[in-house]
Amino acid sequence: MTKDFNYKLVLKVMGSLALVEGVILLLVCLIPLIYGEKDAHFFLISSLISFSFSGFALLMGRNPSNSIGKREGSVIVTFTWIIFTLIGLLPFWLSGSIPSFTDAFFETISGFTTTGASILNNIEELSHGMLFWRSLTHWIGGLGIIVISLAILPVFSTSGTQLFGSETTGPTKDKIHPKISETAKRLFLIYIILTATETILLLFGGMNLFDAINHSFATIATGGFSTKQASVGYWDSAYIQYIISIFMILSGINFSLYYFGFKNKFEKIRENEELRYYLIALFSFIIIVAFSLIDFSKPFSFPVVEKAWRDSMFTVSSLMTTTGFCTADYMYWQPLTWVILLIVMLTGASAGSTSGGIKMIRVVISAKTCYYEFKRLIHPNAVIPIRYNGHTVREDILTRVLAFTLLYLVIAAFGILVLAISGMGFLESIGGMITCLGGVGPGLGLVGPAGNFHDIPEFSKWFLSLMMLTGRLELYTVLLIFTPAFWKR
Amino acid sequence: MTKDFNYKLVLKVMGSLALVEGVILLLVCLIPLIYGEKDAHFFLISSLISFSFSGFALLMGRNPSNSIGKREGSVIVTFTWIIFTLIGLLPFWLSGSIPSFTDAFFETISGFTTTGASILNNIEELSHGMLFWRSLTHWIGGLGIIVISLAILPVFSTSGTQLFGSETTGPTKDKIHPKISETAKRLFLIYIILTATETILLLFGGMNLFDAINHSFATIATGGFSTKQASVGYWDSAYIQYIISIFMILSGINFSLYYFGFKNKFEKIRENEELRYYLIALFSFIIIVAFSLIDFSKPFSFPVVEKAWRDSMFTVSSLMTTTGFCTADYMYWQPLTWVILLIVMLTGASAGSTSGGIKMIRVVISAKTCYYEFKRLIHPNAVIPIRYNGHTVREDILTRVLAFTLLYLVIAAFGILVLAISGMGFLESIGGMITCLGGVGPGLGLVGPAGNFHDIPEFSKWFLSLMMLTGRLELYTVLLIFTPAFWKR
Repeated sequence: MTKDFNYKLVLKVMGSLALVEGVILLLVCLIPLIYGEKDAHFFLISSLISFSFSGFALLMGRNPSNSIGKREGSVIVTFTWIIFTLIGLLPFWLSGSIPSFTDAFFETISGFTTTGASILNNIEELSHGMLFWRSLTHWIGGLGIIVISLAILPVFSTSGTQLFGSETTGPTKDKIHPKISETAKRLFLIYIILTATETILLLFGGMNLFDAINHSFATIATGGFSTKQASVGYWDSAYIQYIISIFMILSGINFSLYYFGFKNKFEKIRENEELRYYLIALFSFIIIVAFSLIDFSKPFSFPVVEKAWRDSMFTVSSLMTTTGFCTADYMYWQPLTWVILLIVMLTGASAGSTSGGIKMIRVVISAKTCYYEFKRLIHPNAVIPIRYNGHTVREDILTRVLAFTLLYLVIAAFGILVLAISGMGFLESIGGMITCLGGVGPGLGLVGPAGNFHDIPEFSKWFLSLMMLTGRLELYTVLLIFTPAFWKR
Repeated sequence: MTKDFNYKLVLKVMGSLALVEGVILLLVCLIPLIYGEKDAHFFLISSLISFSFSGFALLMGRNPSNSIGKREGSVIVTFTWIIFTLIGLLPFWLSGSIPSFTDAFFETISGFTTTGASILNNIEELSHGMLFWRSLTHWIGGLGIIVISLAILPVFSTSGTQLFGSETTGPTKDKIHPKISETAKRLFLIYIILTATETILLLFGGMNLFDAINHSFATIATGGFSTKQASVGYWDSAYIQYIISIFMILSGINFSLYYFGFKNKFEKIRENEELRYYLIALFSFIIIVAFSLIDFSKPFSFPVVEKAWRDSMFTVSSLMTTTGFCTADYMYWQPLTWVILLIVMLTGASAGSTSGGIKMIRVVISAKTCYYEFKRLIHPNAVIPIRYNGHTVREDILTRVLAFTLLYLVIAAFGILVLAISGMGFLESIGGMITCLGGVGPGLGLVGPAGNFHDIPEFSKWFLSLMMLTGRLELYTVLLIFTPAFWKR
């Protein structure tokens, strides 16, 4: 670690990333051309701005030293999302599709962090190009998280270089492949296979190709942007709703398990405690919510039960995997369901997936530690180790996991306070904070499934943008940058 | 530890405690006699029932073996509160002052756990005797907690016998005096001095003797039962409201610090981190809430600022020390204040005081652990110990503190879910659960400061009664009894 901050390396990485985004934006120009829409030039201009920034950054950052420390790592990860957002908002903003800069920033960072909270009042007004770019931000953001957490981090943390520290992964990792580029390729392949499979299955359900691709992008990334104002509720098709439910659930699974599946290493999947608890929790909550949706005073029939099950399965899966698609306005459901939905938004799905929240692995380890305290009270002299996936968890890892879980809850409480101070209502502050920190999308009240974030105060939009990023990068990466001690020495 | 449960010892202790309560009830007969009210016989009958139970229990439990383990300890502590409640509810129930058994149980356990949540719609209808007994349950419960946590527990846990394990104290303890009875006497003296001082100061403010004594009982125990339906808001006197505010704040301090103060060991007080953070947090929140209560569009004047400061100081002190007295209906305040009030209800005041909640010591240690994680990320190879009151905190204590804090929040979330399922509203479930688990009193919405718990479902009343006890005995003591493993071997 050198004493000077290696800004050249940071600029070089940012420049390379902007180059990638410029190329993607150039490719998106094809969409307006295909649909005969007249806004291709906005993507072209955005692409050129991206290239200009890229050239400038690469020029300023040429010949960097190879030294890279914690600070460079945190700054690179955080600024990757910020630069992508600043370039990515250009098409929306320049074209006037989203006239306010704040709104465009909110919508774009909501995309790249795979949150799916929207400020749009009338989504159908947007052109095909804009809608496609909006869904694509999810897909790019989701892929980025998967690659960082499963390909880049494990290599660096085992080699001792510790580039990125603790961000974006769960507390334990199974290495897929020792080489970053090889692992990244395999993950990319799994990501594409899942997206393509869902697209094809949605086409069978009668969705057109454009909507099918866009919804698959948003599903696999657990994002939640839809091409329709009514979200998936637009399609009154049980088939479509079940397909999307199933793919949301699949997207909440650690992607390395798919790799093990392809390699026929099924014992790795069977032994995985996170997967087991994720599915148990998911289906328990689905059953409870489904029960609460049935009116038992009325005669029982299959369509009634099926509708309750489907609405519950879709909503719980959507919020637990932090996707945020909607088929029903749960603000009309009983308050008990709101409590369940807030709980699943907090827990989230698996580490190593595109989902947000605390992550099931931390919830399981925290729960085991609390339960262990009972055991310790009953047998004070016995040493009972806490095991996970068959291995004993070290005491310092336990402390770290509990500290993360607690910090997550404290930040949530702090954020609710900030939103309430900024002038949002009680329900809106609770729902808005938990949904944005967890990367979900819809909250409660006016920012619930039938509403959006258009009318919240300007300050709240910027604050929630920061919270989406903080949650996406698992708290410490972003918060560290605000710590004075981080910049000392 | 023997294999058989030592039920004789438990019965003996219960019998002795019922004897004490019988004597107290006999003494309370004096109140109706003084005020010329005709309900003295209800206290007499309750007293006789208490004596009968006591005789029966002492007879059944004579000649117990001396062996005492975890199980006996937990059962004794938990059943102390339950037996006291079952006997203590008799005057209310027999006299018809509270006709429903469920309501009488709720009101009495709310008294003994120093919660102060009430089911009474018209408090002024009660006779002097009933009101006095109601306030006295607070005072007895508060004294019990102080003696258990500061006199009994430290002796047993240092001698290795570990009678009561983890209940009712914070994670670290300063011993006052090695002998239980000596320490208990000193604490009793401090408790009486504080109560008497407040009573005298309230008399100066124009309160009558009866109200002054009752409110002092409820303040020092951080209970919150008032003799008036409008609580302390009944007295439109700044003097009275400030006096009660100050004594609520004093009651939130670890009682052993008063002892050190009397011994001129002021460095113990100065070094006490919990006290420092308690006062910093308290006054920070008072200032924020006071600001939110001032209408800055109107002209500024001293009475306006003073009223805002007083309402804020009273309410924040009342809820943070988990007393629960009210002078203003905060449901008419901005939602941001509700968030602050929920946060202070969760944190509570100091360990070793009569207050409930998580306790400041655990909040401070949890916060330090989270902050330490940042430091560890910046300097991965440095060993940075977490210090509290100048001593390094062991890793296993850290895990235990974090597990407690997390378990508290999980139980709160679980309870909100249970209340919502039982049919209570969203605000009522959140407010009701947090206020009862923390031993505060008023919640939000219909169970807010202007309302009460009269109209909540029967099941919710029993559930909240259990939660009051669980929170009072710091989770593990009560929850252990429900663990099958606890009863094995």
